[in-house]
Amino acid sequence: MSDFDSDFDLVLPPSVDVREVGMRDGLQLEAPVPLAGKLAMLEALVATGVRRIEVTSFVSPKAVPALADADQVAAELGQFSGVRFSALVANARGAQRAVDAGIADLEYVVSAADSHSRANAGRTTSEAVGAVGEIAALAHGAGGSLEVIVATAWDCPFDGRTALDRTVDVTRAAVTAGADALCLGDTIGTTTPLRVVRLLDEVRRVSPGVPLGVHFHDTRGTGQANALAAIQAGVTQLDASVGGLGGCPFAPGASGNIATEELVYWLEDSGVATGIDLDAVLAAARVTEDAVGRELPSSLYRAGGKNAPRGAFQPA
Amino acid sequence: MSDFDSDFDLVLPPSVDVREVGMRDGLQLEAPVPLAGKLAMLEALVATGVRRIEVTSFVSPKAVPALADADQVAAELGQFSGVRFSALVANARGAQRAVDAGIADLEYVVSAADSHSRANAGRTTSEAVGAVGEIAALAHGAGGSLEVIVATAWDCPFDGRTALDRTVDVTRAAVTAGADALCLGDTIGTTTPLRVVRLLDEVRRVSPGVPLGVHFHDTRGTGQANALAAIQAGVTQLDASVGGLGGCPFAPGASGNIATEELVYWLEDSGVATGIDLDAVLAAARVTEDAVGRELPSSLYRAGGKNAPRGAFQPA
Repeated sequence: MSDFDSDFDLVLPPSVDVREVGMRDGLQLEAPVPLAGKLAMLEALVATGVRRIEVTSFVSPKAVPALADADQVAAELGQFSGVRFSALVANARGAQRAVDAGIADLEYVVSAADSHSRANAGRTTSEAVGAVGEIAALAHGAGGSLEVIVATAWDCPFDGRTALDRTVDVTRAAVTAGADALCLGDTIGTTTPLRVVRLLDEVRRVSPGVPLGVHFHDTRGTGQANALAAIQAGVTQLDASVGGLGGCPFAPGASGNIATEELVYWLEDSGVATGIDLDAVLAAARVTEDAVGRELPSSLYRAGGKNAPRGAFQPA
Repeated sequence: MSDFDSDFDLVLPPSVDVREVGMRDGLQLEAPVPLAGKLAMLEALVATGVRRIEVTSFVSPKAVPALADADQVAAELGQFSGVRFSALVANARGAQRAVDAGIADLEYVVSAADSHSRANAGRTTSEAVGAVGEIAALAHGAGGSLEVIVATAWDCPFDGRTALDRTVDVTRAAVTAGADALCLGDTIGTTTPLRVVRLLDEVRRVSPGVPLGVHFHDTRGTGQANALAAIQAGVTQLDASVGGLGGCPFAPGASGNIATEELVYWLEDSGVATGIDLDAVLAAARVTEDAVGRELPSSLYRAGGKNAPRGAFQPA
């Protein structure tokens, strides 16, 4: 018998806290969706039971025309209760805009890789870290909190692998400068389970007690395996996107963020509570598909849900 | 900090033995591919370095017209070395055909769920188990071996969940009747990591020392997470299909078997040797796509490989 270990026990937490990022990461690369479509999507997402929604991004409308209506979206949030809404900001000016619009829980992205940081934000990693303190002060002053999302935490599309120490240094500096929470982003969907666990271990060793989430893309089919590894390693805060929205629309069929419904499906089926109703997520995916006008990549959504049988001959 | 366990260590084996099933499970539901196309696919698959290929199925040409040329495919195998070729059979008659065609390593499917067994093979689970002895004798008589693949090991499209004891009973009976190896099939792509581990644990407890593999479909996006869980639980024999071929072609975009290239990608990146060259699998996927004439579902293949950068703005 070639089996190497039969003493394994799959230990999962009692619950996982999903953050729905379809309205931000999902929509940012799409053709702009009219406000009415976004509000239909938002209503459907709130109805899923998800407790955290990253609802938009306060960034330059030139850079991200799809989210140019961030203020208008923010103005609609008062009608919903039981959900913690947050927004991504690109700099202190965006943070001020968010706070003025009534959103005090902020995410701010720092690219661990310099080339990605320059291409994406027009500054080095070090310069990006330098803005954490001011943004944190704005969030805190408004009664909110700041999470720093470390982009290209594992790999950069230009520089290749990001050195583990480099990513860890960014997380340490962010916490020192006032970040309340951290999130590690697999921006281009290239990391894999062992590297996920190794980086998580090191970040936690350096910043014990700081809430730590993960943000995976399913670009290479490994997103849910990475999620499983991260959860086993103790992470309970995961980003996911309804329908797997978030792929580059210029690459047809490319997957985006890990799909909320796929994550919820296997977690709930494995006894991990998410507070999210799977059928409601599938309904939200239909609303989202209408809003963006293209097929969503989620396999579970396309399969018609968890129970849809296969009709054809299928011996194994 | 809501993390529940920071002592986790992701333990993976030094190597995993992938069985390529694209030519059998992948092609069986497609429009028949001409022999020349299959041989091009076979040549490309052999070039990947994979050590086991399930190359066809000896079943009724009426039930599976796509594999009606099993004898012709088998006649071509002598030109390849270093690969263990096997074939799936539906009954003793098919086993005799396979052996006569020169393939002595056989897979035989038994559905653990009666409804699937009746719909798929026209007989009950018990009747299907009753044929194991004769098929094993045919394989052994030809110097080969018999693996019993338990279909609907976790769920049936008609009966819903398959009771764990029922699947375990089938594995026990198969081994008693002469099966040399076992494989658990998630036929409709519905199982999830915790149920994977629980069933594997029980099957191994009942049949210690019997080689045990897994056969996952990625229909609901959980295939690679299930593979990770199975590997952590000690399994080193996994079925996968080039390009993720194996979805029902009548459901456009539906995923099939877990994609060989996605499995190889994360395993090798996590330090687990597969003996398989990723670029060669991607080349084989292109050959396969040409042969079947439709887009393959594999995300990694569609993303253009492991290193393809994202061109557009992508902050996190």
